[in-house]
Amino acid sequence: SSVVKHSRGKIFLIYTGGTLGMKRDPIAGTLRPEPNYLVQQLEILPEMKSNDMPEYTLFEFEPPIDSSDMEHDDWVRIASLIEKNYYDYDGFVVIHGTDTMAYTASALSFMLENLGKPVILTGSQIPFAELINDARRNLITSMIFAGKCDIPEVCIFFNNQLLRGCRSRKVDSWSLDAFESPNCPPLATLGMEINVNTDVILNQPKGRFRVHENINKNVAVVHLVPGFSDEAFENVLSEPLEGLILSSYGSGNAPAKKKKFIDAITSAVKRGVIVVVTSQCLRGTVNLKQYATGKSLLDAGAISGYDMTIETAATKLGWLLGLGISKDQVKLLMEQDLRGEFTKSKTKKLNIML
Amino acid sequence: SSVVKHSRGKIFLIYTGGTLGMKRDPIAGTLRPEPNYLVQQLEILPEMKSNDMPEYTLFEFEPPIDSSDMEHDDWVRIASLIEKNYYDYDGFVVIHGTDTMAYTASALSFMLENLGKPVILTGSQIPFAELINDARRNLITSMIFAGKCDIPEVCIFFNNQLLRGCRSRKVDSWSLDAFESPNCPPLATLGMEINVNTDVILNQPKGRFRVHENINKNVAVVHLVPGFSDEAFENVLSEPLEGLILSSYGSGNAPAKKKKFIDAITSAVKRGVIVVVTSQCLRGTVNLKQYATGKSLLDAGAISGYDMTIETAATKLGWLLGLGISKDQVKLLMEQDLRGEFTKSKTKKLNIML
Amino acid sequence: SSVVKHSRGKIFLIYTGGTLGMKRDPIAGTLRPEPNYLVQQLEILPEMKSNDMPEYTLFEFEPPIDSSDMEHDDWVRIASLIEKNYYDYDGFVVIHGTDTMAYTASALSFMLENLGKPVILTGSQIPFAELINDARRNLITSMIFAGKCDIPEVCIFFNNQLLRGCRSRKVDSWSLDAFESPNCPPLATLGMEINVNTDVILNQPKGRFRVHENINKNVAVVHLVPGFSDEAFENVLSEPLEGLILSSYGSGNAPAKKKKFIDAITSAVKRGVIVVVTSQCLRGTVNLKQYATGKSLLDAGAISGYDMTIETAATKLGWLLGLGISKDQVKLLMEQDLRGEFTKSKTKKLNIML
Amino acid sequence: SSVVKHSRGKIFLIYTGGTLGMKRDPIAGTLRPEPNYLVQQLEILPEMKSNDMPEYTLFEFEPPIDSSDMEHDDWVRIASLIEKNYYDYDGFVVIHGTDTMAYTASALSFMLENLGKPVILTGSQIPFAELINDARRNLITSMIFAGKCDIPEVCIFFNNQLLRGCRSRKVDSWSLDAFESPNCPPLATLGMEINVNTDVILNQPKGRFRVHENINKNVAVVHLVPGFSDEAFENVLSEPLEGLILSSYGSGNAPAKKKKFIDAITSAVKRGVIVVVTSQCLRGTVNLKQYATGKSLLDAGAISGYDMTIETAATKLGWLLGLGISKDQVKLLMEQDLRGEFTKSKTKKLNIML
Repeated sequence: SSVVKHSRGKIFLIYTGGTLGMKRDPIAGTLRPEPNYLVQQLEILPEMKSNDMPEYTLFEFEPPIDSSDMEHDDWVRIASLIEKNYYDYDGFVVIHGTDTMAYTASALSFMLENLGKPVILTGSQIPFAELINDARRNLITSMIFAGKCDIPEVCIFFNNQLLRGCRSRKVDSWSLDAFESPNCPPLATLGMEINVNTDVILNQPKGRFRVHENINKNVAVVHLVPGFSDEAFENVLSEPLEGLILSSYGSGNAPAKKKKFIDAITSAVKRGVIVVVTSQCLRGTVNLKQYATGKSLLDAGAISGYDMTIETAATKLGWLLGLGISKDQVKLLMEQDLRGEFTKSKTKKLNIML
Repeated sequence: SSVVKHSRGKIFLIYTGGTLGMKRDPIAGTLRPEPNYLVQQLEILPEMKSNDMPEYTLFEFEPPIDSSDMEHDDWVRIASLIEKNYYDYDGFVVIHGTDTMAYTASALSFMLENLGKPVILTGSQIPFAELINDARRNLITSMIFAGKCDIPEVCIFFNNQLLRGCRSRKVDSWSLDAFESPNCPPLATLGMEINVNTDVILNQPKGRFRVHENINKNVAVVHLVPGFSDEAFENVLSEPLEGLILSSYGSGNAPAKKKKFIDAITSAVKRGVIVVVTSQCLRGTVNLKQYATGKSLLDAGAISGYDMTIETAATKLGWLLGLGISKDQVKLLMEQDLRGEFTKSKTKKLNIML
Repeated sequence: SSVVKHSRGKIFLIYTGGTLGMKRDPIAGTLRPEPNYLVQQLEILPEMKSNDMPEYTLFEFEPPIDSSDMEHDDWVRIASLIEKNYYDYDGFVVIHGTDTMAYTASALSFMLENLGKPVILTGSQIPFAELINDARRNLITSMIFAGKCDIPEVCIFFNNQLLRGCRSRKVDSWSLDAFESPNCPPLATLGMEINVNTDVILNQPKGRFRVHENINKNVAVVHLVPGFSDEAFENVLSEPLEGLILSSYGSGNAPAKKKKFIDAITSAVKRGVIVVVTSQCLRGTVNLKQYATGKSLLDAGAISGYDMTIETAATKLGWLLGLGISKDQVKLLMEQDLRGEFTKSKTKKLNIML
Repeated sequence: SSVVKHSRGKIFLIYTGGTLGMKRDPIAGTLRPEPNYLVQQLEILPEMKSNDMPEYTLFEFEPPIDSSDMEHDDWVRIASLIEKNYYDYDGFVVIHGTDTMAYTASALSFMLENLGKPVILTGSQIPFAELINDARRNLITSMIFAGKCDIPEVCIFFNNQLLRGCRSRKVDSWSLDAFESPNCPPLATLGMEINVNTDVILNQPKGRFRVHENINKNVAVVHLVPGFSDEAFENVLSEPLEGLILSSYGSGNAPAKKKKFIDAITSAVKRGVIVVVTSQCLRGTVNLKQYATGKSLLDAGAISGYDMTIETAATKLGWLLGLGISKDQVKLLMEQDLRGEFTKSKTKKLNIML
């Protein structure tokens, strides 16, 4: 079951925008995106002339998009480009700003069903155009993964690690080691060679590749803080909301004594709103059966997000709600692992009292 | 400038609730708080008989409060207890559930002005009543810090580290090493001995100790996700909101092209709402001058939360808005370091282009 | 394949000495071992009265041994005690000083063949007798692992992690988190519960348990430094040396141009000395085929220690040389994984040039 | 006290050999050093044409030396080159194999007295000539540090960190993040910009720069293992040994009961051999007064290496013994911090018993 292919490979490269391709304004000294600049840079890049590099076709978003400005339509544009070119290329690289890269990677994970080829998102903290940068290695390594490895997943490559897209988070706004997948080991690591963690990588899909383009936008995230206003919470839950990601405390706890809060959830759930409980903690999982404060959420009709990131819970729910299936099916699939997005408990837990 | 005192010390111990003091129900097997249980346990604890342990007075919340249920009034109860007993004790230990401990610690940091004695919050992942637990060491070490060290700060002690309260976050819902202060070194570390990092600890205050009890509740946190609804955002910003913590992307970025979003902030700011930009990243700082997407927030009248945690930004803003000072003063103080809550850039940054 | 047993369990507890059981001299204030002190302490320990704790028999070394003073005969004493009591107990706990605990754990791993029950070594950085200590949790958790888990391995439990004995190293002389198994994941972790990593734990042996007591002492470790003296090296290699662990650079490199050094190895190997190459690096593995400087060692007849620790390579070689088998068999077994002591490459490596 | 200079800068670049400059043999496919290859590569490197890069003069060792083959004479060659060019350049970059880079950096730290300019050692895990490599960024960043920063120290730059040379160790033989300075924070870190930790960097020297070229070679390292042979140890201590680095257990412990071992040290010390105690632990410090097993070393006349690495203790001792000063002065200076090579205890330790 080798993941490494020995042909040269052919990839489709999408430049959506972001720091990686920015250019310094010769007068103002500030960085800004410039159409065509990255194309020209790649053409003169010595590495691209090597027979060991995959061939590539570059598609550039015009204008390039700062990742903070990315919206659902942009995810659809990327997904459509992959669909259109799916059978003509060995893999896909998406150059993307770092800020919402984890959201886009999560969304694409769900939008691309039965994906059988690598889709690697990458970017950088320092532009390609600077003397010292992380752009060059991030980009070239991503291209090699996309062109030469049979990894049928949406991934993020950043600073020596290939991470599962729907497990990744930007955890550092400054460091070159900006991304982590806190509850999932990396799919591969770059050291003296590239080590691919074959135990973690998903199997090739059996079904035919297809793309889902309809994402429901009526999903919100509420970050709990002590003493939050019940009225504000009720406002958020009001029409047209269809899905709520609750960023709760610890292993999925929320104020059980706040009757209005619990009532608001109960009645929203009755109206058909899907309420998913995630955690403000970077590591660990939601377990709604552990404490009374979690159990009250369960009783109100909320469901567990397990160790899904907020990025993934939000995009998965928007995608499920856009599929045109019943609310019961949405709930069922929300608690099923579809793309490796949460941990199916493998390790044995020993109840320390007996 | 020694931080260690050699008398026995005398501390005031407040048990608010939380996992640390829970008891196993002998029939159901589940954990639940039980009044008086911790008092009895501490009385028979062999360590308490040692002459090296501080003397203590224990005050127990009746009923004990799960930390997910903690509200502003509970912060006020804790602060009042400290005020009432301030001159009779060497220090204070607050036993607290882990879920919102970082919020309470942040809030107390601001509510207790000119604090000259240690206030140590602690708790545990496993109850004191279990065979294997982290409760015993967390509690005893906290008591020793409170009784014997001149650390004039609100702190969290958890699993070998004494952290500044207004820098701490619960980052792991499962591990015994549950807390971190991502952008600030620990104040002290427990190893073979206790190492106190005297360079980081705040100086003794010059003014007289006083307690602020009025916290403004009209503060909300909004966690941005790509494609969020403008209407929902406008709803949150509507009356009676007075303060907004924006949990934005990366180093403080938000969609610059979403005209309605920027307009909503601009008009809210004009109405007097204070908008503070923090980051979804665990590490790093907000810098609104770096990218156009940050600059648009600045232009709309938002202010930077630098590397403040969301926990701290929200509680600091609620406290400032409760002081009865002008909005301009609130803005000014929000960007000033009052309790060591953000990093005043000490290290030299080298612009790598020249 | 559950690793957790639900009976109470019965364990044999060996106190060899070390910080854990020391007592403070009431006059001098210094710590020193005292016969019978730990026995008395355990008897009055409240946890020991719980029906959830394994029953135990305690055997104390008289006098207790500081782990820096541990020698082969002491390993034999421990192994013999385990052999004698093997069928009467569910598991074994060995209380040991931290300094050479990784050596003893490695040695026991090899001396105890077809081990089918847990042997847990533990100790502490702070004595049991101190107000704040890591001794209590380390000891109680080790007893529960030994009495209630089917882990057929020699392990070290320290500060929340159960590590494979023959992979462990003491990496920090001060921190309570003193041990690591740098190239092997922990067998179990203590958090809110105990998570057992069943994928890593060895299978139950098929053969009958037996103990090897004959360890060859003619094994030395040589730590290379640039410009070391050839004469000194030749001296070490002289009679009666039978085994040499070379603590070399990086992935197993040594000065290829130092003709006398290479000649000394060549002629030692010809005389029957087994030369095993390990690394001064904490992480990573020896690969003698990568560079000319490694290949010269291979050509001289040295063999690879892969990612074995120095502690393990030295004890494994002493044990193999004590088995009375041929030198060729020793070499063969040295490069075979017998107790999980090195990594059989599982992950795929991608040659980045193709 | 700015550390950043704004002129272009002019550096002297010494290529001694190592992975960074190797070339792939087009037929065999293996890597090997090739004279003049790196010179040519640097000349065509686009970055070198930038006005923001320091100007450089490249000196190449002929033939290039694999770092495992580095000896004292090579250290002297490097030091002499720096001496010869000291007043004509702003800084120095030494390209070096990773295996013994920490030894060379330590040696140069002592050989270069009153160093007032940066000397940056660097290298890579993957050659410059490979498509994906860490060589390019390591080299360019090192050149910028050497040409544009007033850091008067011998440093190692590797994978985003500038480390003090005499604190660094190669801790991973595979990862691109191969170096650490376990007991000392980095001098600078590369992220979105370069952060220079001005608190840690040494002050500009007051005296005149001078180079010491005489390193005493009669220094050995002995790595203790339980049950080591007394005869072998006595052999090592025999003439012409003048200095011994003992790689001992934990915080500086060795078998106190091994009378022959202690006697051997006692008599060696009487003969004038300097015995320095370091630790096998990566982190933490030697404290010979803590346990009887450490105290016996002290009584035998050994001195403490504190938290010096083995690499540093060995090179510092060789350098001191080569200065032509008295043995008492050697001992005295060995326990003095001369180049930031060990930690002068700054943090307060709290004795937890009082």
